[in-house]
Amino acid sequence: MADDRPIGIFDSGIGGLTVLREIHLRFPDEELLYLGDTARVPYGSKSKDTVVRYTRNNIGFLEAEGVKLVVVACNTASAYALPEMKEHKGAPVVGVIQGGVEAAVKITRGRIGVIGTEATINSNAYQNALARFSHGIYVMARACPMFVPLVEEGWVDNDIARAVAHRYLADLRGQVDTLVLGCTHYPMLKETISQTLGEGTRLIDSAEETARMVGLELDRLEMRASEKKKPPRVRFYVTDSPKRSMEVARRMLGQIDVQEAEYVDII
Amino acid sequence: MADDRPIGIFDSGIGGLTVLREIHLRFPDEELLYLGDTARVPYGSKSKDTVVRYTRNNIGFLEAEGVKLVVVACNTASAYALPEMKEHKGAPVVGVIQGGVEAAVKITRGRIGVIGTEATINSNAYQNALARFSHGIYVMARACPMFVPLVEEGWVDNDIARAVAHRYLADLRGQVDTLVLGCTHYPMLKETISQTLGEGTRLIDSAEETARMVGLELDRLEMRASEKKKPPRVRFYVTDSPKRSMEVARRMLGQIDVQEAEYVDII
Repeated sequence: MADDRPIGIFDSGIGGLTVLREIHLRFPDEELLYLGDTARVPYGSKSKDTVVRYTRNNIGFLEAEGVKLVVVACNTASAYALPEMKEHKGAPVVGVIQGGVEAAVKITRGRIGVIGTEATINSNAYQNALARFSHGIYVMARACPMFVPLVEEGWVDNDIARAVAHRYLADLRGQVDTLVLGCTHYPMLKETISQTLGEGTRLIDSAEETARMVGLELDRLEMRASEKKKPPRVRFYVTDSPKRSMEVARRMLGQIDVQEAEYVDII
Repeated sequence: MADDRPIGIFDSGIGGLTVLREIHLRFPDEELLYLGDTARVPYGSKSKDTVVRYTRNNIGFLEAEGVKLVVVACNTASAYALPEMKEHKGAPVVGVIQGGVEAAVKITRGRIGVIGTEATINSNAYQNALARFSHGIYVMARACPMFVPLVEEGWVDNDIARAVAHRYLADLRGQVDTLVLGCTHYPMLKETISQTLGEGTRLIDSAEETARMVGLELDRLEMRASEKKKPPRVRFYVTDSPKRSMEVARRMLGQIDVQEAEYVDII
């Protein structure tokens, strides 16, 4: 039996659309519903209690919309809230951390770096997940709070972006062979980060790995959608004014068919 | 008759404590109650509707605490929400824009610059207020979205701070004789901003001017507090975890007696 209920995806803002895009490309028959909590963004500088509260709130909205699966496309929310949701009774929940960790472990020669928001790094979520594989893997974690503002300002490869990357990452150069980009914004800084670390370091963007994990989960739960003639339109909700979000979404999603962003009052 | 009800002050975060400090120094007999909306910070990148909603929410909390006067110690909230609150029936409200504008007009030789968040600049609140004085004053306004993250990262006078200031402000050098710092975070960047603009430009920090306006308002409404033997302890509330806010508050308030920050659920 096919399951044509939508998959719900949320992020603190719109960076999680990179995860939506990968899921859409891999599973074009699935209806996707995206929520960007743009009225309360960012999460990365907030406390665990607050992030957990916002996450429950967002998942509640998606469940009320009848989703079959929730994807937490935000590293901070995945790091802080997922461990608190083991008893969660509603839709099954997939985060972004496990995928990044598995991808890193697969290719590393033993030295992994992780970068993310202050909250993500302080939660130790990546460090703990990597430790579970502990075949003597060496892990360096680093919070990079200025990376999100840089991306939002559009400064991804100018002198300031390079100076900030250098300040955060120069001492990781030569120390790690693999770097997990533990924040949905960071793939926009890929070039600059890569230059700072040198060619010896491979970068892991967890969007692709998360899409792969969503597939595994859909199969395990026998929840795949029926085949369609054309991909269903993406449903797009935000908690702040839709105007600016829509511009960015169009840029990020390219050819993917997405509805006009709609404001929802979930707070 | 003395009026010993507290004065309520709020900001999106804790930057508004600079305004509280000035009010405290000028009017040590007044009991002050501060609310930092740290769970929803920042306001400067959000829409007008959302900022107005948060502002009403914060003012409602302060009024429920029985304040006699509300100080909106946040430029974005002052810019977006104050014009919407002319019909407001509760406590009288003082913003931070009028004070900065009056101070700038007093000392300018005719060319004023204004810097602030995207929201503050896009609202045209400063530009409109300055235009009301229009004795042929020339105004240049500039949004500086990276300044707040810089201050929060503690990078106020390093090479990156200087490069960011240069990128935003280099073409204002020689063009303005007075610059209004239209965001409570910016005084922390005073040195760097001043170096970028050169000695010919005087910087206006609206905290002092706002304190002066609070005094005028207290006198007009005959609301001064009675004389005290020692200044009442500052009451301090936040909407996110109090821990980190308290550290910053202690640093900003120095010798001023302030209670442990207390979490309030107003959302």
